[in-house]
Order: sequence, then structure tokens, then C-alpha cells
Amino acid sequence: MTLLIIGSIAYDTVETKSGLSKDSLGGSATYCSLSASFFSPVRIVGVVGSDFKKNDHDLLQINEIDTTGLEVADGDTFRWHGRYDPDDFNKRDTLDTRLNVFAKFNPILSDRNRTSKFLFLGNIDPTLQLNVLEQMENSPTLVGLDTMNYWIDTEKRSLEKVVRKIDVLFMDAFEIREFTQQNTIYDAAEYVHDMGPSIVVIKKGEHGVVLSHEGNLFAMPAFPTRNVVDPTGAGDSFGGGFMGYLSSVDTIDAKSVRQAAGFASVMGSIAVENFSVRKLIEIDRNEINSRFDQLYKLTIFNPDIR
Amino acid sequence: MTLLIIGSIAYDTVETKSGLSKDSLGGSATYCSLSASFFSPVRIVGVVGSDFKKNDHDLLQINEIDTTGLEVADGDTFRWHGRYDPDDFNKRDTLDTRLNVFAKFNPILSDRNRTSKFLFLGNIDPTLQLNVLEQMENSPTLVGLDTMNYWIDTEKRSLEKVVRKIDVLFMDAFEIREFTQQNTIYDAAEYVHDMGPSIVVIKKGEHGVVLSHEGNLFAMPAFPTRNVVDPTGAGDSFGGGFMGYLSSVDTIDAKSVRQAAGFASVMGSIAVENFSVRKLIEIDRNEINSRFDQLYKLTIFNPDIR
Repeated sequence: MTLLIIGSIAYDTVETKSGLSKDSLGGSATYCSLSASFFSPVRIVGVVGSDFKKNDHDLLQINEIDTTGLEVADGDTFRWHGRYDPDDFNKRDTLDTRLNVFAKFNPILSDRNRTSKFLFLGNIDPTLQLNVLEQMENSPTLVGLDTMNYWIDTEKRSLEKVVRKIDVLFMDAFEIREFTQQNTIYDAAEYVHDMGPSIVVIKKGEHGVVLSHEGNLFAMPAFPTRNVVDPTGAGDSFGGGFMGYLSSVDTIDAKSVRQAAGFASVMGSIAVENFSVRKLIEIDRNEINSRFDQLYKLTIFNPDIR
Repeated sequence: MTLLIIGSIAYDTVETKSGLSKDSLGGSATYCSLSASFFSPVRIVGVVGSDFKKNDHDLLQINEIDTTGLEVADGDTFRWHGRYDPDDFNKRDTLDTRLNVFAKFNPILSDRNRTSKFLFLGNIDPTLQLNVLEQMENSPTLVGLDTMNYWIDTEKRSLEKVVRKIDVLFMDAFEIREFTQQNTIYDAAEYVHDMGPSIVVIKKGEHGVVLSHEGNLFAMPAFPTRNVVDPTGAGDSFGGGFMGYLSSVDTIDAKSVRQAAGFASVMGSIAVENFSVRKLIEIDRNEINSRFDQLYKLTIFNPDIR
């Protein structure tokens, strides 16, 4: 099946203990799309400015991402500047955000994009996510949504409205407790199920993932990464891997959802090993499968099974 | 096989958001022994004061723990008073520590205890741990050692000396990085293997456990606990479950070590559900097996397997 992905496309300036990456390709839709493109045909919807480099447009197309939904507007591309704590990748400061052309983004889906069977609403303003969802024709097989603490803090009502209409919610362990006002991630998952989504994916970074599929829990450690260079885009790449895998198998059941979490974790582990999307565009499906296999072996109680 | 356990026996005063527990039975050897007793014959070695209650002595014996190695010395039993942050169980303040009879503890193993095949050196001064280890006759099948940040900070040399002579090292993710001065837990595990231990168990609390057995990694989420009342003794109960299970099967291989991690995690999840050892003495082996089964199901990629 085809996976339609909406989100931000940005030029990021990122500082980590490994160095500085200036005005490099980033944004939730970029990471999601590149990650998902290893599994499934992908169409991207987003806006860039007139400064968006031909190289970067080409890069998406070389990775077989359909960019006909990529709007080029007058002005500059969205810019983000962040700095990660050298001692703790979970802490970061946003030094500068310039929405630029993104401020007036009002996505209009093409007739073809409206009929996509899989839809991923990447991390952007929930009002835009809802706007896109409401343009879909027929009912998509699966709609995923990723978000972040900023939207929970500032747009909780809008976020709740769109969460009620989706199938898969991605949040981290802090976000979901804040969003649901529950004490444990397990209670939070049940709360979200009651709102509508049948799949709740709780991202825990280096500690792995907990997911609840129709109330059945699955928990998985993270792929053991020794070399984190830049965590930007890890969550987006995770979401892209999850949705891309499910779109590729076109089956939503206990097995496929768990496999999807495995591939998602692998894609997150790849994204963090270099700045921007560099590592994501270097690797191939063999490397992904090899990491999936390592992750699987890491988790089996009885090593005789395989 | 029989598991010999040495460690502290204490009366703990603990404050958590759930309330206050005053002068209740605690200590590393107590939690370890009660936890291990579900799996294996256990002999405890430790010291208590003349104030040690008959009820508490009886409690150990009722749970079939051999207490002939329990020394009763003049003076008071070891006291610890701690308070946990109401918002974060990973943060605690020690308000008072009184070593009392423990200050002069000089364990002398009986002839029978010296021949135990499994030995667990619970969390106490590494000098005492080494003292006990050197009294063992023949070579035990497996020696485990648990410790804490306090000993890494104050007795690192002694700790290194005893770690070189053991088989299983238990530490949490922060401790092992501090102990080895490595950046990742994976590098830290290799560092410890190079020192001698063939099994490195990295406890991550609510995030589960990572273990390295002869360089092969295994990672497991925590049992999903919704009701944490008092985390005191979770690590000791974890270690007791791990060593008790291996002692019961008397086989150290990839399968048994992973099973041991599962039972260890279950025992930790039980210990935290009430103050002191209350929950540990309430449950039975059926409840343990049921939790093990839930934990196993939580981790399998392919739910068709079972």
C-alpha cells in the first residue's frame, strides 16, 4: 500500500557533543518519509521555501518518495536550532525556531493523495493534522499520529480532537502521562484506547518501547546503540518505520504490530548515528534486516527457538 | 543446590508517598533470601542485635531459610531510615544510618556453609564480601555479587578486587558506568567481562534489565507494575530471584540465564508492591509463575509462538 506522510520539512542547526551541523535537512516529514521509504511507497505532503535546495529535493526523489505534494512557497524554509546537553541526550534547548513558510501552511491534498490507504500525521500543529485527516476520501486502513510536549502544552484541545479520529498514537512516556493525566504508562494507554486509537505506542528512547494493541501489551528494549551522534529525528524515523512496515504488509494484527515496533526501533537506532538524515540515506535494507535480527535475538527468553 | 547468602539484616524506616513504615524488617540478605527461597534451599549469613524480634527470626525459618549462620550480637540491629521523592522513586535521601552490631561484623562460615555450591554476596562492604568468598571450600559453581554506588565511591579498590573473583555482577545502569568509566552500558559490560565475571546483569528498574552472558546480550522490559508502594529491596529481591533460580536448575547456559532474569524481574516487581517484605511473604509460587508468564508474553515478537 501507499503511505501518505504529512509533517514539517526543515533546515536544522544542531549542536551535540559530537559537533555542529548547520542548516541541514530535517523536519518530521523528512525523517518519517526516508525511514518509511525502505518498506513502502511513500508520498510526502509539506511546504518548503524558495531556498530549498535542489539536492535535497533530489534526495527525496532518489529514495523513491513521491514529492508531488511538496509545495514550494515564497520565503524561507522552516528553521530550527537546538542544542543537546553533552551529558544527557534527553535534555535539549531550542535556541531558535523560525516557522517561515510553515506559518501559513494550509495543505490541500491532491485527489490521488486523498485516497491513500495509510496516513501518517507527523509531528506538527494538531489543527493541521486534523485538516489533512478530514480531506481523506473513504476511510484509510490505518492513520498514525505523532506529536510532542509542545502541542500537549499549547493545543491540547485540538490534539484531543484529532486523537479521537486516529488508529495509532505515538508519544513518549512523559508526554502520554501528561496528555492523559495518568500515573503510569499502562493506565495512560488504556485512557487513550478509550478515546479511540486501537494502537498506543509509547517511545522510551534508549529504554525501548511499550505498545498496547487493543489492550494487549508488548514491550521491547531498544536496539543497543553505542554511538549516538544526534538524536534529532529519532522519533520521526521510529514512526516512519512503524507505519511504513504496516503499510508494506497491509495487515494489522498482533504479529505485524510487534514486527512493526521492531523495525521502528531499528530505524530510530540508525537515525541517531549521524547528523541530519546522513545515516538514513547511507544504509540499505540488508543492514535494517540485520539489526532487526539482532534486536530479535536480544529479546528471546529461550535462545533455542532460533 | 543450596544457595548461601550473605548481606545485611536491618530494621528500616521508610517514607514514600504511600506512607511511613517504621522499624520494619529489611536489609539486603533478608530480601535476597526471602526471594531466593521460592526457588532453592537458602542459608543466610548475617548479624542481628539482641533487639531482633523472635517473629522476624521465625519468619525466615517459616520460609525455610536456614538461619544457623545468623549471628546474634550484643547491641542493636542495623538501622536505616530513608525517604523517597514523591514524584520520582529513583530519588531517595538517606536520613539516618546506624550500623550498630553490623559495624563489627566479621562473618565466620560454618564448615557446612563453606561447601555451598551457589553463593550470593549481597550488597554490603566489599571487604566483607571478599572475606566470605575466601572462606569457601572447593570452587562454588556460581558466585554472584550485588553492590551499590556507595561502595563504588568509597571502596572502589576493594570492590574491584572481589569483582575479579566472582561470576555474576549485579549493578544498575548508572553504577556500572561509574564503576567502569565507560560511556555505554554495553562497553561497561565488556569491561566487566574482561575483569572476570561471565555474567553481567544491569538493572534498569522500571526499564527492565540488560544482561551480558559471555558477551551475548539479552534485554528484557520490566514486569508492568502499576502499584509501587516502596522500592526498597527491589534490587536485592531481583538478585535473590536470579541466583535462586540458577541454584534450583544447577545449569548455567544461555537459556537458564535468561529465565533467571525473568524470575528476577518478577521478584523485584513483587517486592515493591508493599512496605518491607510484606508482599514477598504473602505471595506463592503460582503467582510468581503467572507473572513470569505475563512477562514472557509481553516480550515475544511473534505471538503465534505461544
